[in-house]
Amino acid sequence: MTSDKPQISFDDILKAAEEIKPFIHRTPVVTSTTADELASSYDIDLSFRLVMKCENLQKIGAFKIRGATNAIRSLLRDPRPASNLTVVTHSSGNHAQALALAAKQLGVRAHVVMPNTSSPVKKAAVRGYGATVTECPPTLEAREETAAKVMKEELARNPEQRVEFVPPYDDVRIIAGQGTISVELLEQAKEIDRELDVLIAPVGGGGMLSGVALAAKSIDSHIWIIGAEPSGADDAYRSFTSKTFQPSVNPKTIADGLLTSTGKITFPLILKYVDAIHTVSEEEIKRAMKFSFERLKLIIEPSAAVPLAVALFSRDFKESMKSRATLLMKSTLNVGVVFSGGNVDTSVISSLFEGI
Amino acid sequence: MTSDKPQISFDDILKAAEEIKPFIHRTPVVTSTTADELASSYDIDLSFRLVMKCENLQKIGAFKIRGATNAIRSLLRDPRPASNLTVVTHSSGNHAQALALAAKQLGVRAHVVMPNTSSPVKKAAVRGYGATVTECPPTLEAREETAAKVMKEELARNPEQRVEFVPPYDDVRIIAGQGTISVELLEQAKEIDRELDVLIAPVGGGGMLSGVALAAKSIDSHIWIIGAEPSGADDAYRSFTSKTFQPSVNPKTIADGLLTSTGKITFPLILKYVDAIHTVSEEEIKRAMKFSFERLKLIIEPSAAVPLAVALFSRDFKESMKSRATLLMKSTLNVGVVFSGGNVDTSVISSLFEGI
Repeated sequence: MTSDKPQISFDDILKAAEEIKPFIHRTPVVTSTTADELASSYDIDLSFRLVMKCENLQKIGAFKIRGATNAIRSLLRDPRPASNLTVVTHSSGNHAQALALAAKQLGVRAHVVMPNTSSPVKKAAVRGYGATVTECPPTLEAREETAAKVMKEELARNPEQRVEFVPPYDDVRIIAGQGTISVELLEQAKEIDRELDVLIAPVGGGGMLSGVALAAKSIDSHIWIIGAEPSGADDAYRSFTSKTFQPSVNPKTIADGLLTSTGKITFPLILKYVDAIHTVSEEEIKRAMKFSFERLKLIIEPSAAVPLAVALFSRDFKESMKSRATLLMKSTLNVGVVFSGGNVDTSVISSLFEGI
Repeated sequence: MTSDKPQISFDDILKAAEEIKPFIHRTPVVTSTTADELASSYDIDLSFRLVMKCENLQKIGAFKIRGATNAIRSLLRDPRPASNLTVVTHSSGNHAQALALAAKQLGVRAHVVMPNTSSPVKKAAVRGYGATVTECPPTLEAREETAAKVMKEELARNPEQRVEFVPPYDDVRIIAGQGTISVELLEQAKEIDRELDVLIAPVGGGGMLSGVALAAKSIDSHIWIIGAEPSGADDAYRSFTSKTFQPSVNPKTIADGLLTSTGKITFPLILKYVDAIHTVSEEEIKRAMKFSFERLKLIIEPSAAVPLAVALFSRDFKESMKSRATLLMKSTLNVGVVFSGGNVDTSVISSLFEGI
């Protein structure tokens, strides 16, 4: 089912970076002495300096706008006009908003299938970007069936138009789009004299991790790439260590963006370009979110707190960096951390501060 | 009591910018289509595009580190060594933390008088930076008396040392430090093709507003400078419109950084360089904070939400910009907004989301 041959190259990512530039924010990076001290407080002779890439400040509040924009730009290379194109997807979260806004910015129609359990706020946001929303029961089967039906109906309504499905992560155009995060982050780290030794990104379906890993390794093969996963949804960790795809079964975590299994395209890329995957507990994820709110003044969603939790709290991560530091003859490592998004329900924020 | 002759020039601010650069963050600016749409939704034929300067992401979570660092750097121009210097201030808030961290970074001792009503978290933060904390009753008289006593005791303890008082805002070194915000913001707005037409900053004691106004007007005399104040603490507004100093009496506002009166140095500078002061209600301040959390993913303190509230909600501000736009022959104005800080108690954040 999987292929060892990557269908995507670093050139695709560089091309994506140029294509999507006018439609996305070049999000800032932030540094924090307090975060560095906390990350370095573990009892080993090694310090860490963090460079946090704020995709929580990205359009729609998450990195997904990158892949969605690149996918539509790729579809628009076809000589037929944008007005002839309708893009379709199914998503309960950030990908739905991303595709809707990308379509709006590029003058394309979007039709999004959303589970009827999605929050009214999220459905309103997608409609707010001008997309059509069709609801369905909250199962993968129902979502796929409804998307297929929607595509058929769109074609029946207007046989002249092109109707294209845009998947959320297991797609080379999406992966190339998400990989542009590394292009910016590595540049920005250099600008502030913190050239990266390590880069930590969250892994759910693996669209971002695979793209970010491919790009970072291509720019500087010395950069160590770490995937970060909740221990309550550790399918990528298990897949990576066994080098065999393992599905996500009954995942239980507050990090609702990291529930899915890796894909047929993303998993081989992760095996090829990622150096390690570390997991963190629910408690550590919440502590990282709280740290971000209180000290960094940044709202990050639970999925974005997962790589921060690895950098701040994971004993395994820090132990594993010892040999790396020795090899590089460094006593301080610069660690890039991708804050994937900031779309978190206010109830989750409130619950973090209960009983204080 | 006041002097019309400014004791501070733009050169002082440029010099401060160089002096403090290694010790502060060049904080990012953010833009938001949603904010632009909201600001432009008022029923006039004029659009606004916001450029928000994130001093909430500054060291200690507020712009005050700029002035404090510049004040200590100025004191260190004296040939006597840093180890000989002790800086003293009284403050319940951001200035205390700012002076403590600036002193630590520059190898200087700091002794801060704090009212015994200050939160334990704030006192711990100041001590965490290595400063000595002396508590006193929560009145201005007690604070000033205790600071004078502390300075005497410091000298008695070691007659060799220099003991210097660093006031929170009514001081040219502080004003020059805070004015560096404009130097960065105007550069950053230009970098993203949003050269500013208007700049809105909060006004409490006026240290930031006067510095920011002087710097911005010196760089580009066409930029309109707006002070933003809570209507529950509108002494600067009343002083400005009457052109006569009015003290702050029994101010009542959630924006606890804007309670003080303007100063002998800051008020004449405000009269000279500021074009208007607009006030906003408590309700508008809270709505702006909430907007920032939900849409910008940025935690800002109530005082920082005041200029955002002016940009988003003030009818007076928008009406007053009509003639400005006509003069500039523009239908869209670029508005700089200074997010002064992000140090807000979690109880305030929770209260914003109650009953949702």
